[in-house]
Amino acid sequence: MTYDFWYWPGIPGRGEFARIALEAGGIPYRERGRDEGADVWAKRDSYDATPPYAPPWLDTGELVIAQTANICLFLGDEHGLAPDGRKGRLWTHQLMLTIMDVTAEAHDTHHPIASSAYYDEQKDAAARRAEQFRKERIPKFLVHFQKALGTDLLFGGVTWSYADTGFYVLMSGLCHAFPKRMAALEDEFRPLFAHRDRIAKLPELQDYFKSERCLPFGEGIFRHYPELDGAD
Amino acid sequence: MTYDFWYWPGIPGRGEFARIALEAGGIPYRERGRDEGADVWAKRDSYDATPPYAPPWLDTGELVIAQTANICLFLGDEHGLAPDGRKGRLWTHQLMLTIMDVTAEAHDTHHPIASSAYYDEQKDAAARRAEQFRKERIPKFLVHFQKALGTDLLFGGVTWSYADTGFYVLMSGLCHAFPKRMAALEDEFRPLFAHRDRIAKLPELQDYFKSERCLPFGEGIFRHYPELDGAD
Repeated sequence: MTYDFWYWPGIPGRGEFARIALEAGGIPYRERGRDEGADVWAKRDSYDATPPYAPPWLDTGELVIAQTANICLFLGDEHGLAPDGRKGRLWTHQLMLTIMDVTAEAHDTHHPIASSAYYDEQKDAAARRAEQFRKERIPKFLVHFQKALGTDLLFGGVTWSYADTGFYVLMSGLCHAFPKRMAALEDEFRPLFAHRDRIAKLPELQDYFKSERCLPFGEGIFRHYPELDGAD
Repeated sequence: MTYDFWYWPGIPGRGEFARIALEAGGIPYRERGRDEGADVWAKRDSYDATPPYAPPWLDTGELVIAQTANICLFLGDEHGLAPDGRKGRLWTHQLMLTIMDVTAEAHDTHHPIASSAYYDEQKDAAARRAEQFRKERIPKFLVHFQKALGTDLLFGGVTWSYADTGFYVLMSGLCHAFPKRMAALEDEFRPLFAHRDRIAKLPELQDYFKSERCLPFGEGIFRHYPELDGAD
């Protein structure tokens, strides 16, 4: 069974949180949004049952599952990418939902007014929102994740869960978008950076990282605008 | 078994999406954040295992579950507030996550720069973001929900699911915050308004609506600032 995975071509984007779970889990999938001539919106509109609002979605043939964290929930249950049992399952999903919240806020640092408008049309608001994100929001979230990392479950129990691979994408994205800020926070949150590095070294991911399937951050959610970054 | 439910006192807020599911499901719970002298942050900090990032969370004695949609997922599984079976379960959760996305965007119409700052400090950006939310985002989301409503699963199968009660909160919140805009959209999205009205009439919710447990919208996520509303 090979799943069809649909997301925009050219960027890792929100899709990356599901994609890296597919890759780490060794789950066969096709990246359908990168097919030549693929029309993501037309495909979305073709679904009558359980239609996605937006990409990413996973089409298993039997199921059409949208919302990034929901795709991960499915992969966790079906492919063992989350701890067994209610407690670990819910905890993994809770972490993933918080990871997606930070991701949405990171996006809004460069698009605080309108996703549909250019960055240049909202630069002043972006500067203010990015400052607040750097100073208040990033530390708050990292304090939470550092506490989470210290619990008996770690993120995913003995090995890793989709929240760990999601956390890796989040940390990598934040370091790409806000390199000065994240460097300034490294001492205080050393265990989180170490955890990111552990995930980066998972044997399951090495082929992916070297492949063309793995795209660099660029024009998606995590964007580096030097004027939005700063050590504080 | 009576659950402890923790959320800020005084506002429906994000908590309302979980609270209304508890109420509609007839699930015994205590609203602990409204206890005299309750300290929500201190309580949060007291959890060593599976700590919440922020309220709301549900403390079942055995489990501590945070993230609104995750609480709903738990209630759906444990108390039959979602269809049985993988397809209906994932679909209900997908809808709930999209409902929470709209909710976050609705919040950001009045706080596009910083949650921690006053509305007055970000009124100009708020006016721009609210205009975009009214004109572009609300219709996009409603088109999606209207398509969702037309699928064979409806929202929750035969009766209702936590996505239906969540949708009721969302529609009510939008109508509170943007009464002119929502009135202008009523003709185009009549089935969605009718669906909201169906949920409002659920026998399971009548006692709740009349009780002091049910708080009006006010200073929370869905705020009515006349200057942020408009028919288009």
